[in-house]
Amino acid sequence: MKALRVEHGAVRLADVPRPDAGGEALVRVLMSGICGTDLEIARGYAGFSGTIGHEFVGVVEKAAGRSDMIGKRVVGEINAGCGKCELCITGDPRHCPGRTVLGIVGRDGAHAEFLTLPEENLIEVPENVSDRQAVFAEPLAAAAGITEQVKISSADRIAVIGDGKLGLLCAMALRQDCENIVLIGRHREKLEIGLEAGVEGVMESEVSRLGRRFDVVVEASGSESGFAAAVGLVRPRGRIVLKSTFHGTPSWPASRIVVDEITVVGSRCGRFAPAIDLLADRRVDVGKLISDEFALANGEKAMGRAARKGVLKVLLKMH
Amino acid sequence: MKALRVEHGAVRLADVPRPDAGGEALVRVLMSGICGTDLEIARGYAGFSGTIGHEFVGVVEKAAGRSDMIGKRVVGEINAGCGKCELCITGDPRHCPGRTVLGIVGRDGAHAEFLTLPEENLIEVPENVSDRQAVFAEPLAAAAGITEQVKISSADRIAVIGDGKLGLLCAMALRQDCENIVLIGRHREKLEIGLEAGVEGVMESEVSRLGRRFDVVVEASGSESGFAAAVGLVRPRGRIVLKSTFHGTPSWPASRIVVDEITVVGSRCGRFAPAIDLLADRRVDVGKLISDEFALANGEKAMGRAARKGVLKVLLKMH
Repeated sequence: MKALRVEHGAVRLADVPRPDAGGEALVRVLMSGICGTDLEIARGYAGFSGTIGHEFVGVVEKAAGRSDMIGKRVVGEINAGCGKCELCITGDPRHCPGRTVLGIVGRDGAHAEFLTLPEENLIEVPENVSDRQAVFAEPLAAAAGITEQVKISSADRIAVIGDGKLGLLCAMALRQDCENIVLIGRHREKLEIGLEAGVEGVMESEVSRLGRRFDVVVEASGSESGFAAAVGLVRPRGRIVLKSTFHGTPSWPASRIVVDEITVVGSRCGRFAPAIDLLADRRVDVGKLISDEFALANGEKAMGRAARKGVLKVLLKMH
Repeated sequence: MKALRVEHGAVRLADVPRPDAGGEALVRVLMSGICGTDLEIARGYAGFSGTIGHEFVGVVEKAAGRSDMIGKRVVGEINAGCGKCELCITGDPRHCPGRTVLGIVGRDGAHAEFLTLPEENLIEVPENVSDRQAVFAEPLAAAAGITEQVKISSADRIAVIGDGKLGLLCAMALRQDCENIVLIGRHREKLEIGLEAGVEGVMESEVSRLGRRFDVVVEASGSESGFAAAVGLVRPRGRIVLKSTFHGTPSWPASRIVVDEITVVGSRCGRFAPAIDLLADRRVDVGKLISDEFALANGEKAMGRAARKGVLKVLLKMH
């Protein structure tokens, strides 16, 4: 089968054997989405080599135990725990220290014709959610997951920093619970997408006029300046949610965090079910976030396109 | 009256006029305690000049409105809000952007024969709490305040980094709610004080054997290495409480905070009433934390003593 792989620091389309599902489900991938993390892995982050990609929708081709899953259209939780450690036993395999992560850690990913995942990781997609929408289940789950970690009230004033895919999804997801959301970015056309979802847009150059008044600030720009901006926007006793896994060691004003008693919450994952509901109920419109679509055979070109400035989601179609 | 002042980057004992209480209460100070912040102010932190000191016990000499307070022995909340801003109106003067802070920001402090504070800042001290104990109300309130911000369950595993005054008080206060507390420090004799309060002591050099297993890690060492150690000790989805206002801009592994979904909570203040209860009920024994006691007249010498390595609390006696 064809698979888009990172090997020796380069992305290439390869012909590889169809994966052996072992005790897992074999999924025929219909469509996958290129994430910022894919681009970072291609640059060498996390030392991963193998098939990249972790946003997908597919059809169950083979099941290990649950034959009722065969033929079902599914998306999938990307973390697979060891099943034996304290975290796995207490129901948190997403933080298992021995976990594999689809297309990120120790497990071939979704930019391929087939992938395997534990059956319990798969979630069926309702009929009224298209493939193009379903591909967004994983990043939308991550965005909606903010409210699993941070209590949001409808009166909260929220700022989201970063008008890329992640920032837009965070703003759209939070808009469900809260009316006062400001999206801060560098691209008027992206802020416009937020505006259509009821989110106020502010150019980064004008951020100083906003003041220290936000109850919650979500850092989704993945840049060091984004964190500095967050500290400048959050009110005393407010909360900063770090959504981006940027890989520097930014400096930060520790005394400000302490004196103003700010809480900083690292946030990576979220549950899929609420994200699928948001898509099925048409409460979040991800259509505007799709910049382009390529056949898997043109996967290398697609990665190049996804890396260009201003480009939002690039999809890969497998068949 | 005599007052210990920081002026032009130097600490000196001065003769100054007794303060004009205006609409506030005038307090005759009985005893004050030298805090790490006093030492930092003497080194130029925060650009404060004036009388330093914010830990005290005293007797109300003059009241503005509440004449029933006259003659009462009191301790005092050190933040005084503007009374007009959104934060003051919603009951959080401790974070008022225009606040003054006793001996720290815009307000003469407690290492003096007299001080003034708004009447509502004063809390009466029960008879069975001695002056030496009462001086600890402010730092113990800050330590006990952790549980106002971070939910602690009795089954939590807690590490406190730093065996100075603040770390010891944090460990002692948290010990009220939780049995599994480890204090990490560099001084066997200080860890011994924790041990007598039921807190396990671990030398910093042996910290690697502890592993990433703590639900809550309190950083009270005020050092950059302390924050790095905290990140190494906290479990995924665990919480780091920053208690020290160290004034660097330490680097930190942002990706670890995000991937492991760690929460970092800045924590400065706490309510006085619970701290006074801890003292009155003899649940926290601060006696072991007192290293020395000087007359105010020897205040400069006392500051020198407090700055020496291994020294815990140094008290000043006013009369």
